[in-house]
Amino acid sequence: MSVSIGDVERAAARIAGRVRRTPVLEVSPGLFLKLEGTQHAGSFKTRGGFNRALSAGRLPETGLIAASGGNHGLAVAYVARSLGVRAEIFVPTVASPVKVEGLRALGAVVTQTGAVYAEAYEASAKRAGETGALDVHAYDQAEVVAGQGTVGLEVLEQTGGVDTVLVAVGGGGLIAGIVAAVAGRARVVAVEPELIPTMHRALAAGGPVGVEVGGVAADALGASRLGDIAYEIAGAADVHSVLVPDEAIVEARRELWRTCRVAAEYAGATAYAALMTGAYTPAPGERVAVVVCGANTDPATLV
Amino acid sequence: MSVSIGDVERAAARIAGRVRRTPVLEVSPGLFLKLEGTQHAGSFKTRGGFNRALSAGRLPETGLIAASGGNHGLAVAYVARSLGVRAEIFVPTVASPVKVEGLRALGAVVTQTGAVYAEAYEASAKRAGETGALDVHAYDQAEVVAGQGTVGLEVLEQTGGVDTVLVAVGGGGLIAGIVAAVAGRARVVAVEPELIPTMHRALAAGGPVGVEVGGVAADALGASRLGDIAYEIAGAADVHSVLVPDEAIVEARRELWRTCRVAAEYAGATAYAALMTGAYTPAPGERVAVVVCGANTDPATLV
Ligand SMILES: Cc1ncc(COP(=O)(O)O)c(C=O)c1O
Ligand SMILES: Cc1ncc(COP(=O)(O)O)c(C=O)c1O
Repeated sequence: MSVSIGDVERAAARIAGRVRRTPVLEVSPGLFLKLEGTQHAGSFKTRGGFNRALSAGRLPETGLIAASGGNHGLAVAYVARSLGVRAEIFVPTVASPVKVEGLRALGAVVTQTGAVYAEAYEASAKRAGETGALDVHAYDQAEVVAGQGTVGLEVLEQTGGVDTVLVAVGGGGLIAGIVAAVAGRARVVAVEPELIPTMHRALAAGGPVGVEVGGVAADALGASRLGDIAYEIAGAADVHSVLVPDEAIVEARRELWRTCRVAAEYAGATAYAALMTGAYTPAPGERVAVVVCGANTDPATLV
Repeated sequence: MSVSIGDVERAAARIAGRVRRTPVLEVSPGLFLKLEGTQHAGSFKTRGGFNRALSAGRLPETGLIAASGGNHGLAVAYVARSLGVRAEIFVPTVASPVKVEGLRALGAVVTQTGAVYAEAYEASAKRAGETGALDVHAYDQAEVVAGQGTVGLEVLEQTGGVDTVLVAVGGGGLIAGIVAAVAGRARVVAVEPELIPTMHRALAAGGPVGVEVGGVAADALGASRLGDIAYEIAGAADVHSVLVPDEAIVEARRELWRTCRVAAEYAGATAYAALMTGAYTPAPGERVAVVVCGANTDPATLV
């Protein structure tokens, strides 16, 4: 079930030309932001979506189906439209109106159901069984993890190498892919809101456990349990896990706008928040990349 | 008075480490956006400001002085703060409140005077004569032009070469620097709002002439006459000049946000507008870079 660097490299070849090689901004010497908010559909999720769909061979008539707090759904809708197939997306009721509008604008059939992600997911799994559509999991599927990992390959290429990559965690698909991609070449730090510590608790408990979900980043980081693939990969790699309070996420997002004119949603600013609070303090001369993983946000709230 | 590629290369060496090497986003195959809004102080103006100040040797006690529709002032204020000297900025009354606030936040002494840029400039020149501060011209000074030209060097390096660079024009410092930087390696297209055709009229008239100033981009592109250096360089290089209506600039700015989550002010979206209206239509396979030159804008107006 695990994902290797070879899987990530094959994913990169498979999705090349369909996803953007998003730019890296060196904000100060040795501090790099991977601007993944400029990806098609506004987050890294498009990578995993394409890799899953393009790994499937011929796609079913009923197209793609997914459950999502929002960005994964946007990405799957974007992928389906690009490939000329249908998309059906199940979204929990906490999803932001901006994201739901965006889904419909991309032509997806949207069902809002369930207070949390897990409930929307159950509804989508049941529906997939009925229609035969290809399910694209938001994080716990090998092809999705390998696709997200392409972010890690690009970070190493575009920066000429870093010591550390800071990554926000929800269900853990992104971090698992990045750990697989950079294994042995950079250390990876997991950053989570104090209010959604899926990775932190999983590492402490020796396996994924259910957590409460809340706070400003819940619409994107609101998985209530770390994925099994993420636990397996991150546990084996001895990923360092840190937490940040919501106020630091809010402040980090403002600072990204104020000092760099970079738009980030709360989840997208979470990894950067770890530098601001000192939850992660780089050593002198340490080269650090921060994945700014999404920008699906109302820009009016950036200041 | 002219500026050579050697001047631009020396500027690049002089300002290295002080300015950001802003990233390039390949939005679709062969179409590149130079994301200069992520520069310190939100526009390319910081480049020219540093090159002028660092070329001067020892700076006067009274620091730097400038007149500016806004971004140049922000840049000079930023440069002064970085170098630990004072900045005094003269701003016409049309400058956006966001920019004036930003100037004060950077510690500059701000004087709002004159309905148009030219009047603010006269006031600043008079004051510079009194105080001995180093004047940093917004566009018509060789060191400033050479500094802005470093954008062009980076575009060629970061893209691996393009056929064409699209550049917005106000007083013409940016385009003059870019023409000098890419001479013989890429063609440069000047893009202006129909309501502020300084370059267009200068090329038609055989020299800079006064124009009316108006429309959405006036706070940044609102020079009422092309600079002499810009005319000399652009005229000799046979720069192609096109105009775009304000509605196209507004739409281009929205599209940059909607499809790329790139923040741009109106001036920053002007060059991109030429692709949307067909004012400039690339040939099949032509590699095109668009300079997104500034992002000092109220993000609430991006959607
Ligand atoms: C912007 C953003 N960042 C991070 C995440 C978390 O990703 P993962 O569930 O793969 O940990 C998500 C998930 O939706 C997201 O949308
Ligand atoms: C964002 C932006 N773009 C373009 C320009 C025009 O530059 P120039 O006067 O060098 O032509 C300016 C000038 O202020 C600007 O702020």
